[in-house]
Amino acid sequence: MKYDIKDIAQANKGRLRIEWAGKNMPVLALIAERFKKQRPLAGISIAACLHVTTETAVLVQVLKQGGASVALCASNPLSTQDDVAASLIRHSRISVFAIKGENNKTYYRHINSSLAIKPDITMDDGADLVSSIHHLPLSIHRNIIGGTEETTTGVIRLRALEKEGKLRYPIIAVNDANTKHLFDNRYGTGQSTIDGIIRSTNKLLAGTNFVVCGYGFCGRGVAMRAKGMGANTVVTEADPLRALEAVMDGFRVLPLIEAAKLGDIFVTVTGDRDVINKKHFSLMKDGAILANAGHFNVEIDTVALSEFSKKRRRIRPNLEEYLLPGRRRIYLLGEGRLVNLAAAEGHPAQVMDMSFANQALSVEYLCKNYKKLENKVYRVPEVIDKNIARLKLKSMGIKIDQLTPLQKKYLASWELGT
Amino acid sequence: MKYDIKDIAQANKGRLRIEWAGKNMPVLALIAERFKKQRPLAGISIAACLHVTTETAVLVQVLKQGGASVALCASNPLSTQDDVAASLIRHSRISVFAIKGENNKTYYRHINSSLAIKPDITMDDGADLVSSIHHLPLSIHRNIIGGTEETTTGVIRLRALEKEGKLRYPIIAVNDANTKHLFDNRYGTGQSTIDGIIRSTNKLLAGTNFVVCGYGFCGRGVAMRAKGMGANTVVTEADPLRALEAVMDGFRVLPLIEAAKLGDIFVTVTGDRDVINKKHFSLMKDGAILANAGHFNVEIDTVALSEFSKKRRRIRPNLEEYLLPGRRRIYLLGEGRLVNLAAAEGHPAQVMDMSFANQALSVEYLCKNYKKLENKVYRVPEVIDKNIARLKLKSMGIKIDQLTPLQKKYLASWELGT
Amino acid sequence: MKYDIKDIAQANKGRLRIEWAGKNMPVLALIAERFKKQRPLAGISIAACLHVTTETAVLVQVLKQGGASVALCASNPLSTQDDVAASLIRHSRISVFAIKGENNKTYYRHINSSLAIKPDITMDDGADLVSSIHHLPLSIHRNIIGGTEETTTGVIRLRALEKEGKLRYPIIAVNDANTKHLFDNRYGTGQSTIDGIIRSTNKLLAGTNFVVCGYGFCGRGVAMRAKGMGANTVVTEADPLRALEAVMDGFRVLPLIEAAKLGDIFVTVTGDRDVINKKHFSLMKDGAILANAGHFNVEIDTVALSEFSKKRRRIRPNLEEYLLPGRRRIYLLGEGRLVNLAAAEGHPAQVMDMSFANQALSVEYLCKNYKKLENKVYRVPEVIDKNIARLKLKSMGIKIDQLTPLQKKYLASWELGT
Amino acid sequence: MKYDIKDIAQANKGRLRIEWAGKNMPVLALIAERFKKQRPLAGISIAACLHVTTETAVLVQVLKQGGASVALCASNPLSTQDDVAASLIRHSRISVFAIKGENNKTYYRHINSSLAIKPDITMDDGADLVSSIHHLPLSIHRNIIGGTEETTTGVIRLRALEKEGKLRYPIIAVNDANTKHLFDNRYGTGQSTIDGIIRSTNKLLAGTNFVVCGYGFCGRGVAMRAKGMGANTVVTEADPLRALEAVMDGFRVLPLIEAAKLGDIFVTVTGDRDVINKKHFSLMKDGAILANAGHFNVEIDTVALSEFSKKRRRIRPNLEEYLLPGRRRIYLLGEGRLVNLAAAEGHPAQVMDMSFANQALSVEYLCKNYKKLENKVYRVPEVIDKNIARLKLKSMGIKIDQLTPLQKKYLASWELGT
Repeated sequence: MKYDIKDIAQANKGRLRIEWAGKNMPVLALIAERFKKQRPLAGISIAACLHVTTETAVLVQVLKQGGASVALCASNPLSTQDDVAASLIRHSRISVFAIKGENNKTYYRHINSSLAIKPDITMDDGADLVSSIHHLPLSIHRNIIGGTEETTTGVIRLRALEKEGKLRYPIIAVNDANTKHLFDNRYGTGQSTIDGIIRSTNKLLAGTNFVVCGYGFCGRGVAMRAKGMGANTVVTEADPLRALEAVMDGFRVLPLIEAAKLGDIFVTVTGDRDVINKKHFSLMKDGAILANAGHFNVEIDTVALSEFSKKRRRIRPNLEEYLLPGRRRIYLLGEGRLVNLAAAEGHPAQVMDMSFANQALSVEYLCKNYKKLENKVYRVPEVIDKNIARLKLKSMGIKIDQLTPLQKKYLASWELGT
Repeated sequence: MKYDIKDIAQANKGRLRIEWAGKNMPVLALIAERFKKQRPLAGISIAACLHVTTETAVLVQVLKQGGASVALCASNPLSTQDDVAASLIRHSRISVFAIKGENNKTYYRHINSSLAIKPDITMDDGADLVSSIHHLPLSIHRNIIGGTEETTTGVIRLRALEKEGKLRYPIIAVNDANTKHLFDNRYGTGQSTIDGIIRSTNKLLAGTNFVVCGYGFCGRGVAMRAKGMGANTVVTEADPLRALEAVMDGFRVLPLIEAAKLGDIFVTVTGDRDVINKKHFSLMKDGAILANAGHFNVEIDTVALSEFSKKRRRIRPNLEEYLLPGRRRIYLLGEGRLVNLAAAEGHPAQVMDMSFANQALSVEYLCKNYKKLENKVYRVPEVIDKNIARLKLKSMGIKIDQLTPLQKKYLASWELGT
Repeated sequence: MKYDIKDIAQANKGRLRIEWAGKNMPVLALIAERFKKQRPLAGISIAACLHVTTETAVLVQVLKQGGASVALCASNPLSTQDDVAASLIRHSRISVFAIKGENNKTYYRHINSSLAIKPDITMDDGADLVSSIHHLPLSIHRNIIGGTEETTTGVIRLRALEKEGKLRYPIIAVNDANTKHLFDNRYGTGQSTIDGIIRSTNKLLAGTNFVVCGYGFCGRGVAMRAKGMGANTVVTEADPLRALEAVMDGFRVLPLIEAAKLGDIFVTVTGDRDVINKKHFSLMKDGAILANAGHFNVEIDTVALSEFSKKRRRIRPNLEEYLLPGRRRIYLLGEGRLVNLAAAEGHPAQVMDMSFANQALSVEYLCKNYKKLENKVYRVPEVIDKNIARLKLKSMGIKIDQLTPLQKKYLASWELGT
Repeated sequence: MKYDIKDIAQANKGRLRIEWAGKNMPVLALIAERFKKQRPLAGISIAACLHVTTETAVLVQVLKQGGASVALCASNPLSTQDDVAASLIRHSRISVFAIKGENNKTYYRHINSSLAIKPDITMDDGADLVSSIHHLPLSIHRNIIGGTEETTTGVIRLRALEKEGKLRYPIIAVNDANTKHLFDNRYGTGQSTIDGIIRSTNKLLAGTNFVVCGYGFCGRGVAMRAKGMGANTVVTEADPLRALEAVMDGFRVLPLIEAAKLGDIFVTVTGDRDVINKKHFSLMKDGAILANAGHFNVEIDTVALSEFSKKRRRIRPNLEEYLLPGRRRIYLLGEGRLVNLAAAEGHPAQVMDMSFANQALSVEYLCKNYKKLENKVYRVPEVIDKNIARLKLKSMGIKIDQLTPLQKKYLASWELGT
């Protein structure tokens, strides 16, 4: 078995933490039970490019229990939990290629290592794996029957690929499942971003001017939680509809160029590049803190920040000070990478439970239906989506109402009025 | 000019109130200016079945300024503001058929009166008008080129009609525009439902057990505002996904049969019938208050409530006491009709501004494009939707960011990754 | 029996509404039961200067059940509910001197009429009654044994009187009871102020800039509820401690001179005069709305507003438009008087239940203890305060924990440490 | 110089972190500047028993800059940050006796070591130092002129001591300053408790049943933040007034014996012992998580928990699993000690800034006024309190209003009424 990780000796620590995550993923546990019996993924190879966290470990184990062989690489150079990588190798015998803090070259080498498994299915979080494959000659990886994509950013890239007519195999956009993006993106990103900011700064959020760039599902999660911690929350947006929602939700909405002057803490969650750039650095208050919660580390223009700075030093883990002209200092968290993964532990297991249930069931769906699918980006079938919601509620001990036949009929009729 | 209203003498009071609504509808004002010049609706007859409120009056005036002739009837027997009806006749010379508190027979007679205009376009709020037309022989109203529908309930009915292949002309589902249902349904219904409950009861909401049946866009508006007033808010749902969202939003989710025992105030916002019924009445606490914020008065089974009761009396405007066996009393607001219209003034002008901007622009769109449309339910074109959001922000003095060309390109590309 | 009211014919309407309030005042009901048996106020005359609302009617009935005779006058020219006044006379045979909208001269004449009862005890809401007495020669009203005061503003005035050594008899500051100011001032004023604003304007609060002047207990109630309705809430303060609390609670804190430029709605709750004055009028946006939730109508300088205006007209009940130079318009609610009483129904019965339980029990306490009291402002005895909280919880069906003897001992000991 | 710490080699790491805290304590920085010039503490010895955190380090440095010599020991065995201890010795030359995780015997030995400085003033957080002194013969430490106490629990103990007539010297209850308990206890404890829980569990709080035992200032901070993170928050209380406030704030209030059955996470913040005990353990759900945010580790009966358990193991840092009969598992965070200090970094510097400004200025006040003071527990003088609020606002760049002379006069007068 091949692998490349930091330190196999951390395996036992990882095992306990994976066990803890598993306890908080009851939907995946139910799927695992069925997979063990039915083995729907028998004979399937999967190359998975995901954040190597405890929750991912639980998913990968479930896939294995379904009969698949899996090779795992990181979907972000900073997000790997080295103890988890070690445990996956030692205790689950899964090939892992991921080291926390690896450089870009190693990062792509690891992606390529994962492809040695000759995957039937790819699993992406940000589309770096599928993008790597699409840079290879068409003749390679002909056997791939489909893939899945976890995140908004990846789906945007894949739709661009589809639009250009270049997509080589069908992809299921796990991100677009309701049980994924309505929960993971809002409640998961919301809590874990706040967590990452507090861990790296120990700043009191109450009373701060907290600027959230972007009011998509992730952005509204962050804004909601910042408000919940007592921050005076400002939202910036480029989309008028989302901007208007933010206004009606009680947030102050400003162009970033104005928000730049008053913010104490800034978080980017836009999916776009250079959102915070030199124009803004030069307006910020002494002591401003910058974090990114979007998928790629392009949202804050860190290159410009470095060039603009006279000096730079590390103050605390994941907290770097940039000394700007005029003795102002700006603080960058986790090198501008996903702050919830770089400085905290990523999304809590309870939301990943639903996201990864979508992953597991989408892989199963691909195995059964790939012959019918075109080279397009697909949504997770609604029946899978609703079923996951139902299982999740059940696992929380929550009961809901049932429509009576009369009520169902009423909803389907047009004749009954005033 | 024909009309049937309560009292023409109230016209001046109505005029002032319409003027006040108009001041709070800046988007519609911008459209009116253009309509006056371009007259895009010249020669068009419109039968409109809407709540006869100050905001509707502003819309109807805009349509007239665009060149249309309009006949207006009520979309709910209790929601008519009689002074508004009077002013529309006296000052705007528009035919109105609506009297607050009219009985069902008069209600439908008024709908028929509005059809005497021989409409080219119908405008509905709940689909009673279009449904009346569909009960007529096919030969009548052949000239209708299209219609619009304002509300969730109406859209559900129309899709049922479409599904059965019986829809006779294209309908634009104004309700489904983002600038409509994301705002009107959440912020409008939310505030005005609370308003209606407080006006009719003067109850302190803080500390009460407030049960919201339904967590669609209207339901979450009501739940959000009840929480904002300090109520201990409970949500009931039949859809697992929405139930799960309510849980994650911090609400207690219970089956209604359990919530029935602990609620102080109940609001139905489901779009379905008999949601609160005898089964629940018999479990409720002495003093429980029932209100409906859904379109039709079918959500609370008021017939069963009457039969179950030994005595019934009016305590305050819109507040009726039902004495149940065992000396328990239940209070019903506004006869189980839309409490925000029966006991308050309906949605504030600021949200109706957007909803009705969609109406006005959808009518214009129908006039230009009806030949291309099939007998289906259509969404409001996205360009109209976004433009309304932009105008609204502008009218509020709020500026937002613009994407740079580089940022637009990034969003459209798949090659840039980690 | 003497009285001066608007219209005795409204008595039956008032009776039903008083009954409704009574149902929502369970603590007072428990006190009434005991008073009926024990008659602790037998032979006592009370002059009460209170808002003549349904809740006050319930209190006055309880006092009478305790054996007192009561004369009632209004504590604000705009807050009288005429049907309540009528019912008190017809059904409870209590002298009432109060007409909604009475002018200042009538207002003070009514206060004097209430004094004809030769009170043993005075009951105030704002200290206009006690202040009137203190302007009379010392020889008059020598028989008064004590008084109570309901509101922050009144307590401030009485402490000023005490400080000057001029207070003629002991006063119990009902306002300062925890079961009064923590509840009535926050939850009561909060909800009813929002109610008054919505009733008079039908404005959507979500997304508005809502400025609250003052962050005392009433002010934080208003701010909390404005935020709960989705407003972007700004607080202005002169006290640094309160300002800091507002900041930490997530509000934007600005000097009023800056807030004046951006506010859509302004509410004064400071207890001080001329808080919003000409300086601010001249900066406000076209369409700004002004309301007062403080006790006296001095917080907004309405005289300056009138002088500054070119024209003035009534748009809706309790909503007056002032046309300023430059065609800007400002809207004043309820003539700058307590908006929750002028434009809504005052505090809900559920909070008044506790406030008025303090009144009833304080009067009983005065009867028993007046000989021991000096001419000072006293707090409500803690035992009364806690007992009211206990009764209130009981009436809501809420159970709480009990300390064990060991736990009580631990709290009283200093020896047990780490 | 004597000291007893973990590892002097961590000094440089500690220095950077102390520097970071200092940046976030601008009020203390202003005091430091003045102290450096005026040296008001020259010649004074201080024994300080505080949590050895970065913020405490900043305070101790300020005291030294004022001229004092200081010996520092921990006020909790788990709360010491070893790198901070090291830096204080190496870079500030202050005697420190504190090791994270020390046992009780070492803890008290360290307290005694700090007394070797022969203090003129004692500084406590929980009253273990002052309590140790009061167990010594009266003849020792006769030179002590006064002390300060930081926390609610300590103040309760000291008042018990005062009540018994045994308090040997005056104490200033820093905790009771408004700029302390209104901020530190609410916003500091609120945020840092949530932080400690998330760090040790990585649990999603949204949608959980989160039980807060105690609704004092700390408790309402925790409850407010739990709600802000989307938890369904339940409050338990023994005091009826606080319970009622919790109800009106929208929380569910239950006896703990009922809450025990439904809670996912429990936090004790009562200041009392055995709040969660065997009675509750036996009712809890499998997977329940227990944390304490009160001063001492007596609030959860950990001894009973150990005895009740069949097995116990460490899953993650600060997270221990107790296997109960019937295969249920309960998780205890940070051994039942203050979770915000054991599993996170304690209160953020921004709130400690105000608390410790009260400490520094109270020590200065003691030096100047000790001869006038009796052996009582005193409040921080109001002028100090208000001044700190003013400095804090200034440091945040927030301006507030000023009362005009007319407005001040109005507040002091009783004559102006309606």
